[in-house]
Amino acid sequence: MDIEELLKKVKKGEMSIKEALDLLSELPFKDVGFAKIDFHRRLRRGVPEAIYSPGKTKEQIKEIVKEMVNKEKIFITKADDAIYEELKYFPNCRYYKDCKMVIIGKKEEKKGGGYILVACAGSSDLSIAEEAAVTAEELGNEVKRIYDVGVAGIHRLINYADEIRKASVVIAIAGMDGILPTIISNFTPAPIIAVPTSIGYGTGLNGVAALMAMLNSCSPGIVVVNIDNGFGAGVAAHLIMEKLREK
Amino acid sequence: MDIEELLKKVKKGEMSIKEALDLLSELPFKDVGFAKIDFHRRLRRGVPEAIYSPGKTKEQIKEIVKEMVNKEKIFITKADDAIYEELKYFPNCRYYKDCKMVIIGKKEEKKGGGYILVACAGSSDLSIAEEAAVTAEELGNEVKRIYDVGVAGIHRLINYADEIRKASVVIAIAGMDGILPTIISNFTPAPIIAVPTSIGYGTGLNGVAALMAMLNSCSPGIVVVNIDNGFGAGVAAHLIMEKLREK
Amino acid sequence: MDIEELLKKVKKGEMSIKEALDLLSELPFKDVGFAKIDFHRRLRRGVPEAIYSPGKTKEQIKEIVKEMVNKEKIFITKADDAIYEELKYFPNCRYYKDCKMVIIGKKEEKKGGGYILVACAGSSDLSIAEEAAVTAEELGNEVKRIYDVGVAGIHRLINYADEIRKASVVIAIAGMDGILPTIISNFTPAPIIAVPTSIGYGTGLNGVAALMAMLNSCSPGIVVVNIDNGFGAGVAAHLIMEKLREK
Amino acid sequence: MDIEELLKKVKKGEMSIKEALDLLSELPFKDVGFAKIDFHRRLRRGVPEAIYSPGKTKEQIKEIVKEMVNKEKIFITKADDAIYEELKYFPNCRYYKDCKMVIIGKKEEKKGGGYILVACAGSSDLSIAEEAAVTAEELGNEVKRIYDVGVAGIHRLINYADEIRKASVVIAIAGMDGILPTIISNFTPAPIIAVPTSIGYGTGLNGVAALMAMLNSCSPGIVVVNIDNGFGAGVAAHLIMEKLREK
Amino acid sequence: MDIEELLKKVKKGEMSIKEALDLLSELPFKDVGFAKIDFHRRLRRGVPEAIYSPGKTKEQIKEIVKEMVNKEKIFITKADDAIYEELKYFPNCRYYKDCKMVIIGKKEEKKGGGYILVACAGSSDLSIAEEAAVTAEELGNEVKRIYDVGVAGIHRLINYADEIRKASVVIAIAGMDGILPTIISNFTPAPIIAVPTSIGYGTGLNGVAALMAMLNSCSPGIVVVNIDNGFGAGVAAHLIMEKLREK
Amino acid sequence: MDIEELLKKVKKGEMSIKEALDLLSELPFKDVGFAKIDFHRRLRRGVPEAIYSPGKTKEQIKEIVKEMVNKEKIFITKADDAIYEELKYFPNCRYYKDCKMVIIGKKEEKKGGGYILVACAGSSDLSIAEEAAVTAEELGNEVKRIYDVGVAGIHRLINYADEIRKASVVIAIAGMDGILPTIISNFTPAPIIAVPTSIGYGTGLNGVAALMAMLNSCSPGIVVVNIDNGFGAGVAAHLIMEKLREK
Amino acid sequence: MDIEELLKKVKKGEMSIKEALDLLSELPFKDVGFAKIDFHRRLRRGVPEAIYSPGKTKEQIKEIVKEMVNKEKIFITKADDAIYEELKYFPNCRYYKDCKMVIIGKKEEKKGGGYILVACAGSSDLSIAEEAAVTAEELGNEVKRIYDVGVAGIHRLINYADEIRKASVVIAIAGMDGILPTIISNFTPAPIIAVPTSIGYGTGLNGVAALMAMLNSCSPGIVVVNIDNGFGAGVAAHLIMEKLREK
Amino acid sequence: MDIEELLKKVKKGEMSIKEALDLLSELPFKDVGFAKIDFHRRLRRGVPEAIYSPGKTKEQIKEIVKEMVNKEKIFITKADDAIYEELKYFPNCRYYKDCKMVIIGKKEEKKGGGYILVACAGSSDLSIAEEAAVTAEELGNEVKRIYDVGVAGIHRLINYADEIRKASVVIAIAGMDGILPTIISNFTPAPIIAVPTSIGYGTGLNGVAALMAMLNSCSPGIVVVNIDNGFGAGVAAHLIMEKLREK
Repeated sequence: MDIEELLKKVKKGEMSIKEALDLLSELPFKDVGFAKIDFHRRLRRGVPEAIYSPGKTKEQIKEIVKEMVNKEKIFITKADDAIYEELKYFPNCRYYKDCKMVIIGKKEEKKGGGYILVACAGSSDLSIAEEAAVTAEELGNEVKRIYDVGVAGIHRLINYADEIRKASVVIAIAGMDGILPTIISNFTPAPIIAVPTSIGYGTGLNGVAALMAMLNSCSPGIVVVNIDNGFGAGVAAHLIMEKLREK
Repeated sequence: MDIEELLKKVKKGEMSIKEALDLLSELPFKDVGFAKIDFHRRLRRGVPEAIYSPGKTKEQIKEIVKEMVNKEKIFITKADDAIYEELKYFPNCRYYKDCKMVIIGKKEEKKGGGYILVACAGSSDLSIAEEAAVTAEELGNEVKRIYDVGVAGIHRLINYADEIRKASVVIAIAGMDGILPTIISNFTPAPIIAVPTSIGYGTGLNGVAALMAMLNSCSPGIVVVNIDNGFGAGVAAHLIMEKLREK
Repeated sequence: MDIEELLKKVKKGEMSIKEALDLLSELPFKDVGFAKIDFHRRLRRGVPEAIYSPGKTKEQIKEIVKEMVNKEKIFITKADDAIYEELKYFPNCRYYKDCKMVIIGKKEEKKGGGYILVACAGSSDLSIAEEAAVTAEELGNEVKRIYDVGVAGIHRLINYADEIRKASVVIAIAGMDGILPTIISNFTPAPIIAVPTSIGYGTGLNGVAALMAMLNSCSPGIVVVNIDNGFGAGVAAHLIMEKLREK
Repeated sequence: MDIEELLKKVKKGEMSIKEALDLLSELPFKDVGFAKIDFHRRLRRGVPEAIYSPGKTKEQIKEIVKEMVNKEKIFITKADDAIYEELKYFPNCRYYKDCKMVIIGKKEEKKGGGYILVACAGSSDLSIAEEAAVTAEELGNEVKRIYDVGVAGIHRLINYADEIRKASVVIAIAGMDGILPTIISNFTPAPIIAVPTSIGYGTGLNGVAALMAMLNSCSPGIVVVNIDNGFGAGVAAHLIMEKLREK
Repeated sequence: MDIEELLKKVKKGEMSIKEALDLLSELPFKDVGFAKIDFHRRLRRGVPEAIYSPGKTKEQIKEIVKEMVNKEKIFITKADDAIYEELKYFPNCRYYKDCKMVIIGKKEEKKGGGYILVACAGSSDLSIAEEAAVTAEELGNEVKRIYDVGVAGIHRLINYADEIRKASVVIAIAGMDGILPTIISNFTPAPIIAVPTSIGYGTGLNGVAALMAMLNSCSPGIVVVNIDNGFGAGVAAHLIMEKLREK
Repeated sequence: MDIEELLKKVKKGEMSIKEALDLLSELPFKDVGFAKIDFHRRLRRGVPEAIYSPGKTKEQIKEIVKEMVNKEKIFITKADDAIYEELKYFPNCRYYKDCKMVIIGKKEEKKGGGYILVACAGSSDLSIAEEAAVTAEELGNEVKRIYDVGVAGIHRLINYADEIRKASVVIAIAGMDGILPTIISNFTPAPIIAVPTSIGYGTGLNGVAALMAMLNSCSPGIVVVNIDNGFGAGVAAHLIMEKLREK
Repeated sequence: MDIEELLKKVKKGEMSIKEALDLLSELPFKDVGFAKIDFHRRLRRGVPEAIYSPGKTKEQIKEIVKEMVNKEKIFITKADDAIYEELKYFPNCRYYKDCKMVIIGKKEEKKGGGYILVACAGSSDLSIAEEAAVTAEELGNEVKRIYDVGVAGIHRLINYADEIRKASVVIAIAGMDGILPTIISNFTPAPIIAVPTSIGYGTGLNGVAALMAMLNSCSPGIVVVNIDNGFGAGVAAHLIMEKLREK
Repeated sequence: MDIEELLKKVKKGEMSIKEALDLLSELPFKDVGFAKIDFHRRLRRGVPEAIYSPGKTKEQIKEIVKEMVNKEKIFITKADDAIYEELKYFPNCRYYKDCKMVIIGKKEEKKGGGYILVACAGSSDLSIAEEAAVTAEELGNEVKRIYDVGVAGIHRLINYADEIRKASVVIAIAGMDGILPTIISNFTPAPIIAVPTSIGYGTGLNGVAALMAMLNSCSPGIVVVNIDNGFGAGVAAHLIMEKLREK
């Protein structure tokens, strides 16, 4: 018996209110309403459906996509050419090769409210930086990139001082010593999301050194996501932007 | 020769413009302007001066405070009774014993723009939760607390669903399995700052288990600060609130 | 408006069924039914309320106890004398000093269905072994102990071969090299719950060596809980016993 | 001299009882009886013979199989196509490609007594989930699977609330933040065996993050096996089922 | 029925040989002979009974000692003054305060066959060195010590070149960089047992750095025991000496 | 408005000195002079531009090189044949295959002032040793190499005692137990830069054991760089040589 | 001037004794005698020259071999087919493919004095076991192997109780839980050298779990070598055998 | 027979040159000359005798000091008041309480040749900074300190730009994120010795985070010593200064 039927019985007097209350407390999880709530949650949270590719066959990914394709926008992260080949026949499918992301569903219009600045120190970190930037753009945010290709040091940041200062949110990406977010915090009052990358060697421990430096930054107010998690940083920045747009 | 003198010489024709340019590029760090810039930075960033107590004697802390006391608001974190006794004669000095924080300087007025929600699962985490909450309040933000004292589980969150959903930013604090931020992400579209605490034992490794669970959350968009770093979470939440208030 | 009121309105025709359905799907978390469900869960799961003492003041613990004391049985783990002194005035309060556990609420009658065997290799592990044994006993299970006080080796197990073989569940507790559960698995077809303890030194790393040995046991079918988590092992064994008693 | 001979001599008076006792205490390990005991152990424990493939050549595996094939059922774990090709000529040999397991020997009949529920959050964990499920099925247990293919979140569990609640044992498999077993513990009073998987990246540390979250779960009574050890979880669940069937 | 009785029945013809064989294979663990074997093992292995103090109360230790005192020699390691006070009334009880070891039972006579050389680099390691030396001496071995008190470097070894070269076994103890065993291997063809100690700071990680240096020594043939395990090194050296004395 | 224009206005009297001072303190980062300063810094520091290859495509590296090629000397570290093929058309491009380094720009003349000694224990470390040696040579330093090809032990160092003693700086490279720098410190009063390498296995943990041994050396005054960081060691030695040449 | 010349001058009265003493103390390392000493050391220590292959090209290995080939016996460890192809033209060159070892130089005659027992639990560990066994045999020791191919458990050891008990030294090799050496210690008074192997997965951490279990064995007197270091274990056992043969 | 006697015999013709050569090669380690060499080494290396206090009783330290006091200058590191009280009666004994160092022997005169700059970010690191500074001063070097007491940030460095640029060597000390040495490398061409300190909490891991950041610095040429090893940094800087003074 579903809720509608129950209500009808109450209405008709075929079921007492006490009986109805009892029944309702018994069917917490089967309730259609629940599924709806969950559906709401996802829409409200503004977090896209993401499929993490490693460990899945391209066939499995295709099957998952099939099930979701008409209901939601889908991000397939850490994908590769073969996966794209499998999925490219879906409508509105595109492949961001630089950051190994396949996206299915319409790109959202720019919603305004300022921009997210994505900065990385070296071109080795470019793939993760693009993952963050593309994620944010696809969710309707304006993104500015400072990738500093071709320079050794951090001094080039100075040329971008204005853009850094005016950003609504900054995503700062770095491997090795993970120093970039701390340096950038000198240029801006914006919230800073730090992304450690697995670039480096030896005691870099595939990004653990950068992660630890970021978590222990002497500049308070820097927050951190998992190593190489450009997607997560993009989503976090987007959630802040959504709050700004609410105002 | 300082810049004023240089300008005077240029004005008087005692120095060519080329000479002046050369000289200016030679004196990068001695320029008074630089100090001013830095002073601006701190004001603009909205990050308070913080003194981390461990490793310092109370006399050292007092000396640092003396130097800063009329210029800026000061947060002394992880302090204890003895440190407060040493500092309490400064004007506007108060001690938040629950979170071991001494603050010197006026508490800022509430600035509006929504509230920060601080949630923790167990009362063992209360000290860190208060550190985050007090930091945010002292910087002029409205804070709501959900500390769930006296319950074993997460189910009580349900009673607070509304307050969680409407928060501008959420700070979620947890030790042991670090599950709370992920659970909360089901209730709200707000940005979530996760704070692992050192509560627990064995493989909890003084908060490392909670930290790792948070960094690896299957709910994208959660950001993390250092273990027990309630102060840093409070500052990060404040930086987001400042951006909201800009709008 | 609560559900009862809603049902009354439907009954009276003051609200259409469609309106009622919409409202029901809107109020997922405020529903009294939910709380009830959760209440059911705890009863059904058979897991007691536990308060982990470290990081809490005795006053905080007392406050938590006050709130729960008439509704549920309470286990306060890793407690000490001072905490017991604070709590001893509650009815049905007792203190198991060996395992630093305070329990408030009636001890359950033995429910039958076989026994749980708790084994530990050395008397250094006795505190954790007692934590497991007392937890299981308090929840209504019969417990047999093999603590082997006074022997250096594992050979004494042989004397207890019968008791080990006939146990419904075995909890095997060991520090250092964590070898005991693997040895015991040669004596019994029963499920074995292994508990590493923090006893040892150097590369024992406070129980990590024992934990790793247990997780990597060449004897398949051994399951593990956290280091020093006698309480968790007692609960897990109890859950299995409950299933046996269902039959 | 074997024991039979010894007994004959005692019988015939060719050996005194004292001599016989001395001899018996001298030959502990050569005794045929011992081998028999060990043989009993394996039968009684209900644990199948398992060959862990990595580090062995397919020729070595074949040789091991040859020696055991008529005496016992054999599970070859973490196998690959080449190994199956080598072994497929043995009678009753089959290959579960999804979980890389080759099994030789008759599949046991379903023995009843309830079912084991195997749940995993993402399809990346499917291989380990299948390893657990197939192991349990092959040993004569009924298994239900909840693999949630195609959903991002945990909310789908709600649809399976009934199946989860009624399971005799639950195996809950998860990588990344390892949250699934804790969530499931809200739905069922059954014992829960948690299996961390090596799926994830960065601080996931190939399953260590999931393992630590599971060991530190705030829901008491969850037990854990090694990372990716679906086979071990299947055996542990089977041992519990055997106990249930004894009743 | 014990074995003696069984044999009697066989002798008298009251039991057939087949029956006797069956029974024997049924009573694997209850056999008195077994206990005897185990007793033999300990005597033959030459390994003393050891009680590791941490985690035990002095009362527990006393109780264990009581049970063993007339049967075997007992080593109580990592003990303290309070434990000695508790035990000193046992006959033949003595306390080696430098290495925190209490021994109960007669000291064995020197058995000859060469000597064990115990070397440590700094006086910080003296306690562990004494633990090894006293253990070996108490088991009847001749021990020479090179503790190098008062020198900074390794160069003093040169003065002891002869004694090092002629040792039957060398125990080399070092904290910090753990270099001593490798240096000593240049002076002697003897087997070298390396003992890392927890002396040091920072990345010394309480002996892990020394342990790793020893395990990775470029001089092949060095073997290692646990951090601070002077007792284990003493026993291992003794086992080698016993083999030498067999010849 | 740039600084030149500002100065012109001051000169012409179009701007007061106070206005000019204010403006100057406002434009910290846009100033051309700043970029020049940074350019100076790099020249003065004597640190070459380095491109770390892993994580970059050869096309990206080429693009970076293009931008820098006429301004500075470039070191491309951890490069491979394919990268060299891409870059070899640049003028003054050469490939040190042994240490996987491509260098573009003129090799500096020997500047005198003594020599750097580069020592490694085994030929497995040769690649890192060459990275250090080539870096130092390319920056104008004289380098002597002691690679000890073909010997197992450290004893060959004795033959080179003179060269070691007279070196201005020593770079000592070792994997496994990382003992070499400590041994060498007995031969020379020169500063010693230790380079751990990732050679080894098991607990060598890819160079962590060597790193820890070096950091914990009982010979004070040894300094360390990252695992496999021959380039960094070469630069550090060069910086010391530059100071010597200043005298 | 070499020492011979010096002595001649002293003899002829061309140099005073004081001058000679001064000179001698000045030339510590150039002395021919020293080299001889070192040569002695290696012969006396009985440790063969070993070349660890990883990180070296086959050409480099060949060059090292060329230099040593007529002076000493050479062990090339962790080698492969290609290396053997490069070296096979040297006289007395043979390849032990199972343990990836190439040896150049005559195999030594059996020297008697008992045998070394090499035991491993699973065939996955066979390669390391062979490395130990071959090393010991090549150095002139008798070796018995217990590899237990085809069994799951440890119980088969019982069949070999005699051989284990009578061994002069035991090398016990195990991956996963590293339990084998502890079990074997119940069967023999011989010194036991434990070798952890990198076989296993998940928390096995490539042999670290086995290593830790061995270092923390509750059976005192077990000594350990590096993970997968069969060669080192073979050499250590040989050094003990040499001492036995001295008697 | 010592060398002098040998030479006399050669001179007198009582020993042939061949005999003398043989004997000389036989007595490598007993030779007085050797001790002298070692004595030279220490003088030449310029490294003081250091006694690391932890793990030693004050009586042991006193005894060591007694033996060395007239021969060499002694540094007792990580000492405390009680140790000083024990030692203060030695001539030329002084206590640097800030850095817990007792020194016995004359302070060396300033030797010129530039200065060492010691910088630390926070007053928590002051103790380690003083350890480095005092060590260097006591060895005859000029030291300048920049301790930045009372400031939160790194910006104050700018005021000291000149002093930093002109230093001969820089010692940069930092806990938490270990960023200071990298920042300072922008101000100076001097060699930089980085010292991580154990200040911080959570993932700071008692200095490991700072250490890793320093080892992975994106600014090449920074060298590192052990956590909290101010003494080692002081010695390393002194060794460089000695080289400068040689010129």
